[in-house]
Amino acid sequence: MDMGNRLERPGVTPTLDEVFCPRGVAVVGASASNLSFAELVVHALKDAKFPAIYPVNPKYKEVLGLACYASLTDIPGAVDHVIVNIPAESVLKLLDDCAAKRVRSVHFFTAGFGETGDAERAELERAMLVKAKAGGFRIIGPNCIGLYVPKSRLVNNLNSPLEPGPIAFISQSGGHAQNLPNYSRARGLRFSKVVSYGNALDVNESELLDYFSRDPETQIIGAYIEGVKDGKRFMRVLAETAARKPVVIYKGGRTEAGRRAAYGHTASMTSSVAIFDALCRQAKAIPVDDVEEMIDVLTALRFVHPLPRDTGAALMGAGGGPSVLAGDEMEKEGLRMPCLSPAVQAELKQSLPVAGSIFINPLDTPNLTAPDAISKAMQVIGRVPEIHMLIYHLGFHPISHWGLGRLSLENFVKPAIGVMKEAMRKTGKPVLLAMRPPQGLDGMTEFLAAQQGFVEAGFPVFYSMRQLARAMVRVIAWNRSCPHSRGRAKS
Amino acid sequence: MDMGNRLERPGVTPTLDEVFCPRGVAVVGASASNLSFAELVVHALKDAKFPAIYPVNPKYKEVLGLACYASLTDIPGAVDHVIVNIPAESVLKLLDDCAAKRVRSVHFFTAGFGETGDAERAELERAMLVKAKAGGFRIIGPNCIGLYVPKSRLVNNLNSPLEPGPIAFISQSGGHAQNLPNYSRARGLRFSKVVSYGNALDVNESELLDYFSRDPETQIIGAYIEGVKDGKRFMRVLAETAARKPVVIYKGGRTEAGRRAAYGHTASMTSSVAIFDALCRQAKAIPVDDVEEMIDVLTALRFVHPLPRDTGAALMGAGGGPSVLAGDEMEKEGLRMPCLSPAVQAELKQSLPVAGSIFINPLDTPNLTAPDAISKAMQVIGRVPEIHMLIYHLGFHPISHWGLGRLSLENFVKPAIGVMKEAMRKTGKPVLLAMRPPQGLDGMTEFLAAQQGFVEAGFPVFYSMRQLARAMVRVIAWNRSCPHSRGRAKS
Repeated sequence: MDMGNRLERPGVTPTLDEVFCPRGVAVVGASASNLSFAELVVHALKDAKFPAIYPVNPKYKEVLGLACYASLTDIPGAVDHVIVNIPAESVLKLLDDCAAKRVRSVHFFTAGFGETGDAERAELERAMLVKAKAGGFRIIGPNCIGLYVPKSRLVNNLNSPLEPGPIAFISQSGGHAQNLPNYSRARGLRFSKVVSYGNALDVNESELLDYFSRDPETQIIGAYIEGVKDGKRFMRVLAETAARKPVVIYKGGRTEAGRRAAYGHTASMTSSVAIFDALCRQAKAIPVDDVEEMIDVLTALRFVHPLPRDTGAALMGAGGGPSVLAGDEMEKEGLRMPCLSPAVQAELKQSLPVAGSIFINPLDTPNLTAPDAISKAMQVIGRVPEIHMLIYHLGFHPISHWGLGRLSLENFVKPAIGVMKEAMRKTGKPVLLAMRPPQGLDGMTEFLAAQQGFVEAGFPVFYSMRQLARAMVRVIAWNRSCPHSRGRAKS
Repeated sequence: MDMGNRLERPGVTPTLDEVFCPRGVAVVGASASNLSFAELVVHALKDAKFPAIYPVNPKYKEVLGLACYASLTDIPGAVDHVIVNIPAESVLKLLDDCAAKRVRSVHFFTAGFGETGDAERAELERAMLVKAKAGGFRIIGPNCIGLYVPKSRLVNNLNSPLEPGPIAFISQSGGHAQNLPNYSRARGLRFSKVVSYGNALDVNESELLDYFSRDPETQIIGAYIEGVKDGKRFMRVLAETAARKPVVIYKGGRTEAGRRAAYGHTASMTSSVAIFDALCRQAKAIPVDDVEEMIDVLTALRFVHPLPRDTGAALMGAGGGPSVLAGDEMEKEGLRMPCLSPAVQAELKQSLPVAGSIFINPLDTPNLTAPDAISKAMQVIGRVPEIHMLIYHLGFHPISHWGLGRLSLENFVKPAIGVMKEAMRKTGKPVLLAMRPPQGLDGMTEFLAAQQGFVEAGFPVFYSMRQLARAMVRVIAWNRSCPHSRGRAKS
């Protein structure tokens, strides 16, 4: 029986690269009777066809059809990563088993440590860290949902996409670490690695940022941070990382209530948001205000090409009231909408209907879902030097469009993609889409099909004008301030 | 053949009450071949079982299975309301027919009038008004989608709810007039009358506000306004109306781009938003920034009972990161979250689990979807004098909850409604819900069922903490400033 996993390098602490590619995973505390995190993970790993999953629980012989072991040391195969969902009181004994089994990493879903404010629990955390150092393995957490690494089939949620992408996300919150990939999936965001690191007992935000700055699989980095333990180191690493790749940061605990919650959540003493945001900007990171804005900014960084360095935008789409609203929302967030000159307006009027139309920017004509009209509008307006991006919106909530099948994949999406790509090629300006999702089943299938069409064709899709504008203002400010980004932006 | 509809009172201009209850509706310009607004309306009126629908178009004998007439005067029955979708050039002749037929009101969907900026088109509008005055009928629009009056089965969109409710909505935009009722349907908002009035050639915002201030079927008024033609009259009527009923106003054209769009849209010269908002507040109306906020504020006015006069709120729900985010969003928008005292925290800890929990406000415990835990939390926290409302949130995006069926109608919604109603009764504090909809099909059926359960039980449901908080801050400020509202607010 091969008890050691790392006989090849006994006593050497594994690299994060090794941590992210485990050969076998044990799930300690999995039960056959109760649907807690441990069973969810076993279920998810099975669905993802992870090759070697070992539930551990002395009470069961089998969990979800897999052989269940009484203890970690009973497992015959190699175990590199251990996922732990047992009470805090029992973890020290388990860590001895982890050392004996020579695992690379131990992820504690288990909560009830330093974040409770209890001195004994904080002491327990220190003892855990000593055992990890001595045993030559890393600790993820405690109080988190751990690792999601698509290329390794290492998942921590059901239905997680298995195709990798260029975005890394680190999160002090397990909820956000689950929600962000799920919620952004339809927008086309895919991830190299997602790390939920909770109380940051061992692996922390600074080490992770440093790793991702050099990770060839990662081009864009997102971070949800409640508090950092070594502020100086963090700011130094952040500046070094942001000099190489865009880093988007949502600092949780932005208000008094948020700060209180953050302390109770991960024992983080959060600092002043104003100072934190200022330091982020100084480090050339991109601060955002919430998880949705994180998704929007990641979408812009991933799919807007070329990334503008100026806020002048043209807005086009069908509907008068929605155009007024869209124009309001854009300028309120800080995108400028340069007025179209009489000459440009006249050129547009040659081929677009005048009745029921608005020609000044925003452009609204009754036929602006017809590919010919979109093509004409984008090519004429795209040549205006003050316009740096072309934004196409589909009204406030075009449920009747979707419902009536007028904007189907064949009638609308595919031809629209064709003319939009042509306009981008001819004008050198990026095209962005604002499409509000239905908030019910009515029209949802049609909306999702349209979204999928645009996303698979490489377009950035935003769910409202406000969100689109806010994200672009953030990204443009970053792009202007950032010397290294010049190569990315051609407009 | 009875050519006259109002032989009983020849020459007398009808009241708006009469306009809102037409016996017969003609749809001029309906065609059998093309799906434009006219066919949509015929289709919608048929679905709504409106009793007497008369398509008018000399080219057809039949439209959507209904007899189609060559002209208005060929219609045998009474026609009180005429919906017009023919080119602007042909409208004067039609208005002669309207006078001959003695109709009560003519709604012009047709655009291409004053809003084009063309002097001839503006002159045409003046000629239309002269004919309406002489003919003793009212004009709605032009350039709008007209009337939606559920109790009369008078609809202008497919699938419009036919049960009336206490909210009136007037809108200078047809898009918003369609979207607001559709979009707010699942939130439980129902309408007495919705009037899209476009260019406001005849029936305008001041007359409508005045009408709704006295309409016994209306308790709450919403208005989307791009520009007013008689500012003094409008402000006087607004103050009089707001002294009787809450009035929520979204002023379109809040930015330079929005203003340009508004002029192109309905020929409205919009004024400075700062001045308009200040005047609204002085008149005790509630200004909002967009259509979604309008829906949120209407939801608060309709379903939060008693309406608080103070911003102190308690937040509870499952998930650490989501609780930090929710706390941040609440305080950022201006709701205060008073810290729970050690005594209150200790009382909560007696019956709620400590590990993985946050106890300070926000309250986050792993079992906070269990009815017993919700009940305990709400009854203990609801007794705190500084807390004026109890907010229950379901995380950022509880797709796994919905998807796994944990939050089903039977397991979660029905028991939760029971304990929440009990907590409201015992503490006298309102309970509000924040539930983020899935943005796809996954979990949507479960989400919609849960939403429907809560809404039908009379709870206000908001789609994010930010939206909930922003709406409540608006409504509380109004409630504090408004002497007449005291009777409404007991907390």
